[in-house]
Amino acid sequence: METTEKENMLKSYQTVRTFSEQLVQPLNLEDFIIQSMEDTSPPKWHLAHTTWFYEKFILKEFAEDYQGFNVQFDYLFNSYYETVGPFHPRIQRGLITRPSVEEVFEYRRYVDLHMADLLESDKPEEKKEELVRVLKIGLHHEQQHQELLLTDIKHNLAQNPFLPSYQEQEKKNIPAAGSPSFVAVEGGLIEIGHSGEGFCFDNETPLHKVWLDSYKLSSHLVTNRDYLAFINDEGYKKPQFWLSDGWNTVCKYQWESPLYWFKREDEWHVYTLGGVKKLDPDEPVCHVSFYEADAYARWAGKRLPTEQEWEHALASQKIEGNFAENENYHPLPCGLNKSGPFYQAFGDVWEWTKSPYVSYPGNKPYEGALGEYNAKFMCNQMVLRGGSCATSSSHFRPSYRNFFQPEKRWQFSGIRLAEDVR
Amino acid sequence: METTEKENMLKSYQTVRTFSEQLVQPLNLEDFIIQSMEDTSPPKWHLAHTTWFYEKFILKEFAEDYQGFNVQFDYLFNSYYETVGPFHPRIQRGLITRPSVEEVFEYRRYVDLHMADLLESDKPEEKKEELVRVLKIGLHHEQQHQELLLTDIKHNLAQNPFLPSYQEQEKKNIPAAGSPSFVAVEGGLIEIGHSGEGFCFDNETPLHKVWLDSYKLSSHLVTNRDYLAFINDEGYKKPQFWLSDGWNTVCKYQWESPLYWFKREDEWHVYTLGGVKKLDPDEPVCHVSFYEADAYARWAGKRLPTEQEWEHALASQKIEGNFAENENYHPLPCGLNKSGPFYQAFGDVWEWTKSPYVSYPGNKPYEGALGEYNAKFMCNQMVLRGGSCATSSSHFRPSYRNFFQPEKRWQFSGIRLAEDVR
Amino acid sequence: METTEKENMLKSYQTVRTFSEQLVQPLNLEDFIIQSMEDTSPPKWHLAHTTWFYEKFILKEFAEDYQGFNVQFDYLFNSYYETVGPFHPRIQRGLITRPSVEEVFEYRRYVDLHMADLLESDKPEEKKEELVRVLKIGLHHEQQHQELLLTDIKHNLAQNPFLPSYQEQEKKNIPAAGSPSFVAVEGGLIEIGHSGEGFCFDNETPLHKVWLDSYKLSSHLVTNRDYLAFINDEGYKKPQFWLSDGWNTVCKYQWESPLYWFKREDEWHVYTLGGVKKLDPDEPVCHVSFYEADAYARWAGKRLPTEQEWEHALASQKIEGNFAENENYHPLPCGLNKSGPFYQAFGDVWEWTKSPYVSYPGNKPYEGALGEYNAKFMCNQMVLRGGSCATSSSHFRPSYRNFFQPEKRWQFSGIRLAEDVR
Amino acid sequence: METTEKENMLKSYQTVRTFSEQLVQPLNLEDFIIQSMEDTSPPKWHLAHTTWFYEKFILKEFAEDYQGFNVQFDYLFNSYYETVGPFHPRIQRGLITRPSVEEVFEYRRYVDLHMADLLESDKPEEKKEELVRVLKIGLHHEQQHQELLLTDIKHNLAQNPFLPSYQEQEKKNIPAAGSPSFVAVEGGLIEIGHSGEGFCFDNETPLHKVWLDSYKLSSHLVTNRDYLAFINDEGYKKPQFWLSDGWNTVCKYQWESPLYWFKREDEWHVYTLGGVKKLDPDEPVCHVSFYEADAYARWAGKRLPTEQEWEHALASQKIEGNFAENENYHPLPCGLNKSGPFYQAFGDVWEWTKSPYVSYPGNKPYEGALGEYNAKFMCNQMVLRGGSCATSSSHFRPSYRNFFQPEKRWQFSGIRLAEDVR
Repeated sequence: METTEKENMLKSYQTVRTFSEQLVQPLNLEDFIIQSMEDTSPPKWHLAHTTWFYEKFILKEFAEDYQGFNVQFDYLFNSYYETVGPFHPRIQRGLITRPSVEEVFEYRRYVDLHMADLLESDKPEEKKEELVRVLKIGLHHEQQHQELLLTDIKHNLAQNPFLPSYQEQEKKNIPAAGSPSFVAVEGGLIEIGHSGEGFCFDNETPLHKVWLDSYKLSSHLVTNRDYLAFINDEGYKKPQFWLSDGWNTVCKYQWESPLYWFKREDEWHVYTLGGVKKLDPDEPVCHVSFYEADAYARWAGKRLPTEQEWEHALASQKIEGNFAENENYHPLPCGLNKSGPFYQAFGDVWEWTKSPYVSYPGNKPYEGALGEYNAKFMCNQMVLRGGSCATSSSHFRPSYRNFFQPEKRWQFSGIRLAEDVR
Repeated sequence: METTEKENMLKSYQTVRTFSEQLVQPLNLEDFIIQSMEDTSPPKWHLAHTTWFYEKFILKEFAEDYQGFNVQFDYLFNSYYETVGPFHPRIQRGLITRPSVEEVFEYRRYVDLHMADLLESDKPEEKKEELVRVLKIGLHHEQQHQELLLTDIKHNLAQNPFLPSYQEQEKKNIPAAGSPSFVAVEGGLIEIGHSGEGFCFDNETPLHKVWLDSYKLSSHLVTNRDYLAFINDEGYKKPQFWLSDGWNTVCKYQWESPLYWFKREDEWHVYTLGGVKKLDPDEPVCHVSFYEADAYARWAGKRLPTEQEWEHALASQKIEGNFAENENYHPLPCGLNKSGPFYQAFGDVWEWTKSPYVSYPGNKPYEGALGEYNAKFMCNQMVLRGGSCATSSSHFRPSYRNFFQPEKRWQFSGIRLAEDVR
Repeated sequence: METTEKENMLKSYQTVRTFSEQLVQPLNLEDFIIQSMEDTSPPKWHLAHTTWFYEKFILKEFAEDYQGFNVQFDYLFNSYYETVGPFHPRIQRGLITRPSVEEVFEYRRYVDLHMADLLESDKPEEKKEELVRVLKIGLHHEQQHQELLLTDIKHNLAQNPFLPSYQEQEKKNIPAAGSPSFVAVEGGLIEIGHSGEGFCFDNETPLHKVWLDSYKLSSHLVTNRDYLAFINDEGYKKPQFWLSDGWNTVCKYQWESPLYWFKREDEWHVYTLGGVKKLDPDEPVCHVSFYEADAYARWAGKRLPTEQEWEHALASQKIEGNFAENENYHPLPCGLNKSGPFYQAFGDVWEWTKSPYVSYPGNKPYEGALGEYNAKFMCNQMVLRGGSCATSSSHFRPSYRNFFQPEKRWQFSGIRLAEDVR
Repeated sequence: METTEKENMLKSYQTVRTFSEQLVQPLNLEDFIIQSMEDTSPPKWHLAHTTWFYEKFILKEFAEDYQGFNVQFDYLFNSYYETVGPFHPRIQRGLITRPSVEEVFEYRRYVDLHMADLLESDKPEEKKEELVRVLKIGLHHEQQHQELLLTDIKHNLAQNPFLPSYQEQEKKNIPAAGSPSFVAVEGGLIEIGHSGEGFCFDNETPLHKVWLDSYKLSSHLVTNRDYLAFINDEGYKKPQFWLSDGWNTVCKYQWESPLYWFKREDEWHVYTLGGVKKLDPDEPVCHVSFYEADAYARWAGKRLPTEQEWEHALASQKIEGNFAENENYHPLPCGLNKSGPFYQAFGDVWEWTKSPYVSYPGNKPYEGALGEYNAKFMCNQMVLRGGSCATSSSHFRPSYRNFFQPEKRWQFSGIRLAEDVR
C-alpha cells in the first residue's frame, strides 16, 4: 500500500468505527443487553461481533503475534460461520450479561489499536491486496450492522409498552410533490450486476446478460395514504389479494396494518425512533412485509418489479436521498427528492422486489469461511433494493442486493409498483 | 362440439376417472381414511375432492338444473379456493369418517352420470369452448391428485411400524447403462414456456425470451450409489455443504439419509410402494428434499440446473420413460432409457431445479376462482421438472412446472446435476 | 376353581366382551380408525388393546403352549406398560390402518376361544387364584375402556363439522325434582377405602383412618340452569373465580362454555351421542373441566368436596342410577333418582372433587408390570367420584377413584358442591 | 401502635429492604436486566415489584395524599394480581430496559421515605392493626423475592456458557457426620398448621386435626453420593422408577442429572453461585425436581414424606442451619447440624414432599386482592418444606409451605426419605 491508500484505509476504518459508537450514544446501558426476538440482536452484540470480524478475519490472519483479546469471544461473537468454529445460539444472545458493555468497548479499543498498527505497517504487496480486500468486506459488514443496530434498537424499545424514543426528532415540513405516474422503461438484452471499480459483495457479481420485456415503474413510492386505502378496503380481510403463505401469516399473527402502526382514540399513530407520532399520509409506507407489498400490488391491479427491472431503471440516478447520515431514521415525504424520473430512488425505504434471492449465473461466492457471508442464505428470501433511511450512503450502490424472508417487517421496507406493458 | 370431440372428451373423462379408482383398488377400506401429516390427504378425500372440482366448476356452471349431491361437500371437499367459500381445515382431513367411502363412490357415480349427460348434450358453441377449457383443467387436476394419491398412500402406510406394501412388485432386472458425462448445451437468447397446441397450466405461459449462458447438464440422474458416497463422506454432518435453512432442517429433523431409507442389520433398505427392499445402488436417488439435492451438488462440486436450462436442454427428447401407467411406482435404474443425450429425461423422478417458483414475465393467472389454482403458491417453493414414476405420461409435457417447498421429501424427487462452462 | 366359579368367571368374561362389541355396533367401519386428539384412541385400538391385555397378562402367563395371534400386536396394542416392552406412540394410534378392523375382530375371537379353554381347564388351586385375580383386573380394565369407547367416539364424531350422531335417542320426559339443599354430614375419625369382598383396584386400598371436620354436601348436582347463571354473569371473563392455571387455560383455548355447547341462532345447543339438541336446563351440567367446576364453586360461594367427604357421605346409598347399560349415554334430569339424601349419587356424571390423585397411606401398587396400571399417574390429576352415564354399574363401587388432569373435559364430568360448617 | 412497636416495624422494614439491596451488590448493571426463562425474573424487576407491593397495598391505602412514583409502574410491576388491574406479561419481563436500574433504586428510596413517614405517623388503632397486618405480608413477600433473587440470578448467569460466579466463596471444610438412619415417628390424631403468635401466610391456617399412621423419616438428607448411585444405576434411563409425567419430562428435556451438574473431563462438576466446582459427594443433593426426588425414592425402596409427616416430625427442632444470612448460598455437608434426631432439618435445601399443594380444611384466603397471593396456585404444584440456603431464617417457621410445579429444578430443592412402618 502506498501511504495515501494506507491513510485512506485507516481513515475509512476509523470513520466506520466511530459511526457505530455514535449510533449507540442515545442508549441507556440497559438498552445494550436485550434481544426482542430471534431476528434482532442486542446492541452490545452488534458492537462486539463487528469487532470480532476484524479480529478473526484480519488480525489473526495478517498481524504477526496478534494475541486475541478474550478467548471466549470466538464463541460468543461469531454469528454464523460454521467453518470457523462453534457459536452461541442466536436466540440466546440477549441472555449474555458478561462481558459487560464496558468490556466490549475495551475490546473495540484494543482491536482498533491493533488495526491501526497493522494498517500502518509495511506488508508485501500481495498480502496488502488481500488485506484491503478483506478489510473492505469488514467495513461494509459493520455498516450493515449499523443498519441493524437501528432497526433492532427500534424493535427492542417497542417491546416496552410505553414506547420510549431512541432520539427525539424535530418535525420536518417536507411537502409531497409530483403526481405519481408509471414511467415506461425499455427492455431488451441488458446487463445486470456490479461492473464499476468500487466495492461490492460477491452476490452482486458477475455482470451478466438478462432479457427484459419493456415495462413501467412508478415514479413514486407507495405512501401511507395509498396504503390506508387498501386497509380501508379491508385488504387484510380478503384472501384473494394474498399469496397463500401470506394469508396464513396474516391469520397467524392477526395482522391488520404495517408493523408499528396502532390506533389511539381512533386515529392511526406510528412508533418511530423519534417516539410515537400521528401517521403522516405523505410518507412512504414502511415496515411492510413482502406479503403485504405483494398483496397491496395485487389489490392495486399492479405488481412488484423484478430486481432486474429495478436495477435497469434506477441505476443511473444519483445516489442521494434520505440515508442514515441524515439522522432522520425514518422515511420522509418525497419532496423534490429525485435526480431522474423516479422520486426517492435511494434511501428512505428498501423496496421489495418480486425476485427471490438466488445467485447470479456464473456467480462464485467468496473463498473460505467468508463464502458463508451471503451464499448460504439463497433460499426462501426475497430481494429488496434501494437502501433506506437507516443505510449509510457510503455503503450503498445501485447493484446492492438486500434480502429478507417474505414475512419480515422490522426493516425499513416499502413498496414501488410496476406494471407490464400490454 | 362435434360428435367426435364430444366423444373424445367423454372418453378422456372416463379414462381419467377410471384410473383414479384403479389406483385405490389395492387399499383396505381403513386405508382411505387417514392423513399422515398436513401435506398428505386421505385417499377418500382425493377421490371426493377431484369429483367436487367437476361439480363446482362445471356442473354448477354449465348443467341446467343440476342439483348438488350433498350440500356439505362444498365445505368438506373444497381444498383451498377461498373465493368460492369456506372449507374444512387441511390438517383435519383425516378426522372425517362421514361421508363413508361408499358414499364417496356414489358421489363419483352421480357426478359421472351428470358429466356424461352434459358432455353429450348440445350447447351453444361459445359455452362449449369454455366447458372444454375447464374440463381439461379438471382432468389434469385429477391426474395431479392421482400422483398425490400414490405419494400420500406411501406416506400414510409408512406410518405403520410394520411397513405394509401397497402392491407387490416383481423384481426387475434393469441394468445401469452408459457412463455419466456432462453434456454441453449452447445458450443464447432462447424461448421458454408452453407453445404447442395441447393443454398446459396457466403457470407455463406465456412463451417468453430468456438469455442463457452456455452450460453443461449431466447425462444421468444421481444414483443411490452416488448419493451413498455423500452420506459416507458425512455429508449430513458438514454444514459447509448446506444452505442455512437446509442445515437447520437437517438438525431439526435429524436427517441422516433420504426419506424412506433405514438401516437393518447394518444394510441400507428402502420402503417402497412394493414393500421394503434392499437399496439398489443403480436406481436414481429419490425422496430427497431440495436442501439435500442442493447440498449434494455443492459436495460434488457442481450445481443444480435452473428450470430454463432444464427445459432448453430436454424439451426435444421424446416423452417416454417410467411413468405411472407402467405401474412400477418406483424409479428404476436407467437402462437404455433415453431418446437423446439424456437418460431418464422424463418419468422416474422429478428433478429439483435451483429456480424458485415465480410467475413468467407477462403471465396472467386463470380468471376467477381458478386463478387460485397456481398463482398464490408462488413463494417459498422450488420448481421441479420432468415427471416421475407416479405421473401419468398423458399428463406430462416438457414445459410442465411442478413445485414444492424446499424441505419436502415425500414426492418422488431426485437430482440431475449441472455445471457452468468456465 | 369349582365348576360354579369357573362358570361364573366365564360368564362374566363373555358378558363384558359382548358389551364392548355391542357398543361399536352403531359405527361405520371408517369410524373405527380415527383419533381426534392425544387423549382419545380409535375404537379399533380399544377393541384390540383390551384383548391384548388378556393375551399378555393371562394367556401368555397361564395357558400352556399359547401361541400369540400376531407378534406385531405386542408393539401396537400395549398402551403404556414400559416394563413389558416398547409400544407405539400414543399420539399416532390413529394412523394405523393395518391390521384391519376385521382382523381385530378375529383377534378377539381367537383370544376369546383360548380364554374359554383356559377358564374351563383344570389348574392347581394356587394358579387359579392368581388367574382369577388378574382376570378380574382384565374385565374391569375392559369396562374402563368401554367408557372410553363412548367418550372417544363422541369426541371423534364431534370433529366432523356436521356432527353426526352415534345412536339416535328418544326424547325422555324426566322432571327435575326436589329442592337443592346442603345436607349436613357429621365428620370425625372415619375410614376411607375399599373394605368389602368384591373387586377393587389397588389405588382404593388400604382402608385407612382419616379425620374429617363436619361439612355439608349438596343434595343435587349442578344443573345446566345453574351453570348458565355463571356464564351469564360473565364467569368465563372474570379471573377472580379461577385458579391461575385455570385462567391460563380459559385464555389459551378461549373457553366460553362447557365442551360440546354451542349457540345456534342465539340458543344454546349441545352435541350428544344422540346428535345435536337444545340445551335442557334441568340436566346436570356435563363436560366441564376441574378448572370450570372449581371456578363455578368459587363463584357460587361454595367449594368442591374432597374425595373423602364424598365417599363418607355417599357410600351408603344404593348403586343405582343412569349407567351405561341404560343406554342413554347422556346425563338426565334428576327425577326421583335417589336412595338417600343425595340425588344422582351414582351414574349420570363423574363428580370432580378437590382432591389431587395421590396414593392412600400404606398403599401398595400391584406387583410387576400391572404396578404401572394406576400408580404412575399419581401426579397432576384430580379425583372424580360417582360414575357416569357411560360407566357400567357392574364396574362401579363407592370407593372407586377416577382421575383426570384438571383441564380435561371430554369425559362425562360434572359438579356437586360442598361447604364448610361454620 | 405504641412507639416501640412503631420502631420495631420500621426497623424490620429497613432490615428487609437493606438485605434486598445487599443481595444485588455483586451484580453488574447488565445482570439486572435479563430473564432466563418464564419462571425467573430480572433482578431489576424483583427490586421494583417488592417496592410496588408496599406502594399499592400500603401507601395507596393508608397514606393520605400519597402520589404514586410513576403511573406506568402499576402495569410494569404488578406480578399477577388480576383484581387490581392489567399487568405486563410475565414472559416479557426481560425486555424492559426503561425504567433504568437507577430509576428503580430511586423508586425504592421514594417508597422507603414514604413508608418511614407512614410508620412514624399517628393512626387510629384500627387502621394501625390493618397496616401492620399488611406490612408483615409485604416484608415476608420481599423475603420470598430475596430467595428468588438468588435462584434467578443463578439461573440467569448459568445461561452464559462461561458460567460466571455471583460471589466467590471460600472453601469450607465441613465433615459429613452421623450415620443415616430411619427415625421412627409416632402417628395418631395430631394437629397441623400454624398455631403460634408470629406471622404466617394464609395457606398455613387453620390449625387442624389430621390422622397420621406411624412412620419413619430419615435422619439425613439424600447426599450427592447417594444420588450418584442412582445415576450410575441408570436411574435416568429406567422408566419403572418414574411417574408417567416424570418420565415424559426426562425424555423431553433429556435429563441425565440434577440441574447445574455437568461433566468436565469425565468428572462431575456443579455450577454454584460461587462458580464452578467439583461435585462434593457429602453435600445434600440439590436442584432436583419432584419427579427426580420421587424416582430416587422409588429406586431406593422408600418414599417421600407427606407434608404432615414432615411437619409433625420436625416442628420441634430449633430453627437453625444454613440460611441465606450465612451467605453460603449453597447447601453444605451436614456436619453436626441438628438439634434433634434430624440433621439439616431447616435451611440448606427445600425438601420435596409427596403432598400436592391444596388448601387446609376450613382455610380462608386473605380478603381482597391479596387473596390472590396463595390460593389461586393450589393446583398442579407440590409442597416443599424446611427452607434452604437462600431463605432468611427470620422468614422461616416450621409450618411454612413452599410450593412449585413438579418439574421445576431451579430452586434449592432436595430430598429426605420416609418409609412406612410395616
